[in-house]
Amino acid sequence: MQHQSLRIGLFGFGVVGEGLYKVLQQTPSLKAELTKVCIKHPEKKRNAPTQLFTTDKNNLLWDEAINVIVEVTDDADAAFEIVATALRNGKAVVSANKKMLAEHLPDLLQIQLETGSSLLYESAACASIPVIRNLEEYYDNDLLHAIKAIVNGSTNFILTKMFEEQLSFSEALLLAQQSGFAESNPVLDVEGYDAVNKWALLLNHAYGIVEHPNKILFTGIQSIHTADAQVAQEKKYEIKLVAQAKKLKEGNVAAFVLPQFTKSDEPLSFVKNEYNGVVIESGFADKQFFYGKGAGSFPTASAVLSDIAALRYQYKYEYKKLYHHQPHTLTHDFYLKVYLSFTDWHFIPKDDFEWIEEWHAGEERKYLVGVIHAQHLYNQNWWKANETSLILMPEPIIENVEIVKLKKRSLELAGVNL
Amino acid sequence: MQHQSLRIGLFGFGVVGEGLYKVLQQTPSLKAELTKVCIKHPEKKRNAPTQLFTTDKNNLLWDEAINVIVEVTDDADAAFEIVATALRNGKAVVSANKKMLAEHLPDLLQIQLETGSSLLYESAACASIPVIRNLEEYYDNDLLHAIKAIVNGSTNFILTKMFEEQLSFSEALLLAQQSGFAESNPVLDVEGYDAVNKWALLLNHAYGIVEHPNKILFTGIQSIHTADAQVAQEKKYEIKLVAQAKKLKEGNVAAFVLPQFTKSDEPLSFVKNEYNGVVIESGFADKQFFYGKGAGSFPTASAVLSDIAALRYQYKYEYKKLYHHQPHTLTHDFYLKVYLSFTDWHFIPKDDFEWIEEWHAGEERKYLVGVIHAQHLYNQNWWKANETSLILMPEPIIENVEIVKLKKRSLELAGVNL
Repeated sequence: MQHQSLRIGLFGFGVVGEGLYKVLQQTPSLKAELTKVCIKHPEKKRNAPTQLFTTDKNNLLWDEAINVIVEVTDDADAAFEIVATALRNGKAVVSANKKMLAEHLPDLLQIQLETGSSLLYESAACASIPVIRNLEEYYDNDLLHAIKAIVNGSTNFILTKMFEEQLSFSEALLLAQQSGFAESNPVLDVEGYDAVNKWALLLNHAYGIVEHPNKILFTGIQSIHTADAQVAQEKKYEIKLVAQAKKLKEGNVAAFVLPQFTKSDEPLSFVKNEYNGVVIESGFADKQFFYGKGAGSFPTASAVLSDIAALRYQYKYEYKKLYHHQPHTLTHDFYLKVYLSFTDWHFIPKDDFEWIEEWHAGEERKYLVGVIHAQHLYNQNWWKANETSLILMPEPIIENVEIVKLKKRSLELAGVNL
Repeated sequence: MQHQSLRIGLFGFGVVGEGLYKVLQQTPSLKAELTKVCIKHPEKKRNAPTQLFTTDKNNLLWDEAINVIVEVTDDADAAFEIVATALRNGKAVVSANKKMLAEHLPDLLQIQLETGSSLLYESAACASIPVIRNLEEYYDNDLLHAIKAIVNGSTNFILTKMFEEQLSFSEALLLAQQSGFAESNPVLDVEGYDAVNKWALLLNHAYGIVEHPNKILFTGIQSIHTADAQVAQEKKYEIKLVAQAKKLKEGNVAAFVLPQFTKSDEPLSFVKNEYNGVVIESGFADKQFFYGKGAGSFPTASAVLSDIAALRYQYKYEYKKLYHHQPHTLTHDFYLKVYLSFTDWHFIPKDDFEWIEEWHAGEERKYLVGVIHAQHLYNQNWWKANETSLILMPEPIIENVEIVKLKKRSLELAGVNL
């Protein structure tokens, strides 16, 4: 097989871009040459020859000598224009921009269909863990029962410190920022936006689901309280921000990103600090677990490099769950067993629960364990307000409505009214 | 990209072969058709149409309509002839036969060079864990510092039972056989032959090393004693059969398969029962961990299927560590810190140790911890005989000869003579 010689136009020369520049210089065997770099701030000092740089994107996008565009900027809107134009101009594209990719996925799929150009983005989800390629290549649609993952390193770092060093949320966040694992504006990470963007992308490669991130039930770890960490430790659980998806009946898939109690012998409990982890349950390969660094300049550059290497043999995602199979449908029609901690019953619409099977009033906070419909959580926001903290119980999904009705009725008949 | 339509000739219709037949029927999207199956025993009842089967290998190897040969037999010698002929006849080949692949690797590399045909064998090492493809695609030679793995599920199952249920080696082996995780003749697994075959293959994809398995220092778990498990538990270690490789100076690589004490917070300690695990340490992606089922019909069929899927876009291993980089050299020129348990000092050539830093005499057994040259272990067999059990200490490799000399001298000066 003849390898294509790659001539790369790079957008962005931050830590990832510069890292990539260095690696490409060290790996002549790749036959990939960095032809031009487009930057926003020409006044900044760069560790590369001046003639490499331009501020005009068209110098890259319309240069016929460039056949690959690598986009590692942090501007989602500008990035979409760049990527779309590049694909339409017959160039292959590698992007690390999860927000742009997740929000513009339908358009990007359409452009790929029309142009036949390849768009790769392994670095956009779990960086150094090759999860997208593996979902594309190793799992047939019918066999993928479930996928669970820790996809955000900042929040996992904060949760680890809350557990292992009994820090409060704000102390742990400060430590994460000092250690370089959280942005100075941490909202995107802490409140789950980054995780749900990645999850929207992975749902496509896992199940052929194409949905905007705002259609997915999610929150972050902003409400998790030291008291919740204590409850978890009493119950021998850890708390993780878990992105998960599970195949239900008739082509439906339950998918959400929520904090969860995880048992200590589960693979995801092994994932500490800034690491990411992915657990895939399939009919054939059984349970698989991938673990590695999910962010940072080097892990990201490493994933970008692997995409570039794949372009040498004209690799492209087939999106086979979407195009070659019956794609699945995202649903909120199932029940979740949740732990909820709060300061006052006043804030909790008790009637919205199918049943409440445990409750506890402590000095500082109260908590309950109950079952609630996922659509209700998606529609309402009370559980994100008033210092209320929601954490999924282990094995949280109850699909069978009849079982829920029966259990509810039997509790009513027994006169149980917690 | 146009997909190649695959017409498959299958050798072997045991559990893996039959599993593959079923999956191919269920995945028409693969555009892979099973054309003919070559079997040894036509008298056996098969769950497939009679006209599919033949006992004449030439009906597959010389049929121009067949463009892919899948080889999942258990006969290493016959398999080599089949695979070599198929490649020479311009067919792509998928094989799961680690013994054949490891022992004939130089020939198979040569034939691939001459014919340009693709030979894939993801299922031959760690089955459901896509380690070969990831080593090929995700790690640049210069960046791969070390790789450690549990590549044999049978021995890991036995060790887990020795630890968690305090079974003796023979009790644990019996349980493994009853559970289907060990062959009725378990020597290949238990004594490390299976592991070292896989390791010879992976050393090629990791470092471009092409060596016969018998050039690699290895043993299995046949000598591990319940007393060793007790020592491990006192020291808060587990015992695992670890295949490992580490880059030393000047293009040398230390590589071996030996039992090792692993610390409880290491990823490999997480690998229990019949599972496999691979830890890759690289400059860019940092530490990565892959975990999954390493054997069994379904995980193996799943890996074979992923190879077949890759053939649709003419994928072949590039062996880039071998051909595009300066390949590394396997060396035994380094020191190992080992734990050795035994029944009588008489069996231990104390002078062969650089130094002995700890020893203990218990009721049943004695043990020591000392430093010994790896070449000595490779050349000699006393440590595999007379109920002597060798287990590597954590971080066992000492590369620097000067440090060893200095430490030895200082111990002599101090009059320490354990």
